Amino acid sequence: MRAYNKSRIVGQLLFVALGIAFIYYLFTPSLHQTNVVKPQIPKVDTESIVVYDMNEISASADAVRKKEEVLILTPIARFYPEYWKNLLKLTYPRNLITLGFIIPSTKDGTKVHRELRAAVQAVQKGPKHQRFADVKIMIQDTGLSSGQSEKQRHSLEVQKERRSKIAASRNTLLFSTLGPKTSWVLWLDSDIVETPQRLIEDMTSFDKDVLVANCYKRHNGNLIPYDFNSWVDSDHARNLAKGMGKDDILLEGYAELATYRLLMAHTYDNGDPRTLMELNGVGTTALMVKANVHRDGAVFPTFPFYHLIESEGFAKMASRLGYKVYGLPNYLVFHYDE
Amino acid sequence: MRAYNKSRIVGQLLFVALGIAFIYYLFTPSLHQTNVVKPQIPKVDTESIVVYDMNEISASADAVRKKEEVLILTPIARFYPEYWKNLLKLTYPRNLITLGFIIPSTKDGTKVHRELRAAVQAVQKGPKHQRFADVKIMIQDTGLSSGQSEKQRHSLEVQKERRSKIAASRNTLLFSTLGPKTSWVLWLDSDIVETPQRLIEDMTSFDKDVLVANCYKRHNGNLIPYDFNSWVDSDHARNLAKGMGKDDILLEGYAELATYRLLMAHTYDNGDPRTLMELNGVGTTALMVKANVHRDGAVFPTFPFYHLIESEGFAKMASRLGYKVYGLPNYLVFHYDE
Repeated sequence: MRAYNKSRIVGQLLFVALGIAFIYYLFTPSLHQTNVVKPQIPKVDTESIVVYDMNEISASADAVRKKEEVLILTPIARFYPEYWKNLLKLTYPRNLITLGFIIPSTKDGTKVHRELRAAVQAVQKGPKHQRFADVKIMIQDTGLSSGQSEKQRHSLEVQKERRSKIAASRNTLLFSTLGPKTSWVLWLDSDIVETPQRLIEDMTSFDKDVLVANCYKRHNGNLIPYDFNSWVDSDHARNLAKGMGKDDILLEGYAELATYRLLMAHTYDNGDPRTLMELNGVGTTALMVKANVHRDGAVFPTFPFYHLIESEGFAKMASRLGYKVYGLPNYLVFHYDE
Repeated sequence: MRAYNKSRIVGQLLFVALGIAFIYYLFTPSLHQTNVVKPQIPKVDTESIVVYDMNEISASADAVRKKEEVLILTPIARFYPEYWKNLLKLTYPRNLITLGFIIPSTKDGTKVHRELRAAVQAVQKGPKHQRFADVKIMIQDTGLSSGQSEKQRHSLEVQKERRSKIAASRNTLLFSTLGPKTSWVLWLDSDIVETPQRLIEDMTSFDKDVLVANCYKRHNGNLIPYDFNSWVDSDHARNLAKGMGKDDILLEGYAELATYRLLMAHTYDNGDPRTLMELNGVGTTALMVKANVHRDGAVFPTFPFYHLIESEGFAKMASRLGYKVYGLPNYLVFHYDE
């Protein structure tokens, strides 16, 4: 009887243990599912065929209601906590927002990567309804240094090479993050520390192909114009360009190269924030672009394109593609005060 | 004893059944894994953060051994079974190949979609080791008609608009398929019905940024040069361009617009298939591009870019980005004989 009982007890214990394993197997989600980032794909046909109807992508004045997906792109060589705090205050539904960052693979980049990742993880490991749809971080040897001083960075001679490299980074970031369902791309520079909370709702509401906010900085209680890449062309600048070699570029904000363009930064008058002006050049501090403008082929020229590069060249390329470019002189976003 | 035996047998049967269930649980792949399209992602951080190191992407002369991923892109307005048969004969490992197609959302497009999908499904539902890594089909209102006759399609007046639309399609396709791990992009036109089976191994082996094969067609046993978009520029063409308005374009293969460029199609001499020549314009019949060339911003201009559009404009843009463009005069691919 002892032997019989012992065997029976062992059998029952095994039975219970295996029963638990079986029930666990039936009811827990698969291990794979929790580890794998689920692709957001509209129509999965069989295992590896995906069909996208590009005609279904809407980019309209009614972005929230139509659940339009927004891709926020930020090349980042220095992590500003204020940038991140401001980003988290934006009211557009996060489940419709994908974030994309590109970080230089330098020593500074490693620091940025650590800081950015900690910030992102705090959100993405938090409550599901507060998470962004997706966050993509790219690391690339951009050849850019974040170690230059503000003065060096802005000197005319180094600007051309610097902005060419930034343009290449932007293109790389764009090519690896623009999804088949993206409606809008918001280029938001990493040193933008304050924007209206409804930035995305506001900027999409104009239903423009390319639209840039006006970038200022706050300094000792004063408002100082900051981004001079958003402008209306002048005959003087056009004539300057005509006399240039094919690899020469025009740059804004340098006394030695006066263009007499109308700079949007100088047209702010604290008036109606819905005032629109048509532009020929744009900056990327807060630039909203319909994804189809990029899909059609508008990128950031790394080479002089009509004597323009990077974001200013992008505006020219968008206009060559038949799109119109606008700015919001009275709608301010704020640059970090260095 | 009867009762004891019965209970013991039931217990043992349950034990065995649950044991089998447990072993099944341990060793079978998850259900989810087989239904979900697995994204090919290098480093998954948490649920929705993905980090890509772009410096790790290799595009080398040793593509197979380095497991370099190839994206084959084909805008397709008519499904040629011979194109598909030829594609299936390519020897490059299919688990490293992603296919991307863009189909016009027209009545003809619907037919193409049906035919293409049937062809793709036959492969993707077959044995795993014979499947492509991924297949993406995009549908877009391209404004292109496949109903035009060959003569209409090639008439000088309609070429500019037609190729501008093709360029936009190519860009849309590229933007939604180029992944963060893609090493090479092979543009392969839908009417290419015969290529060497080692097309991908051969073309990557040259380790060139942009490389185009020579496109002929077979007609009544003769070899007829077909694609005239691959050329070396001439002084005559450059002078023609100088006298043009900014929206005028140069096109190849028209008697009324003689450019006196050196056309690669005319340099085939049945010699060494590894002969290289530097080019200024390329066609897309079989065009191998390092993915980084696109990532840097080389797209297909839909607008006159140095008086060039589409694939010829792409070659110019690649060269403005600092890349060199080559052709293989004695390496033939064949166009459908209309």
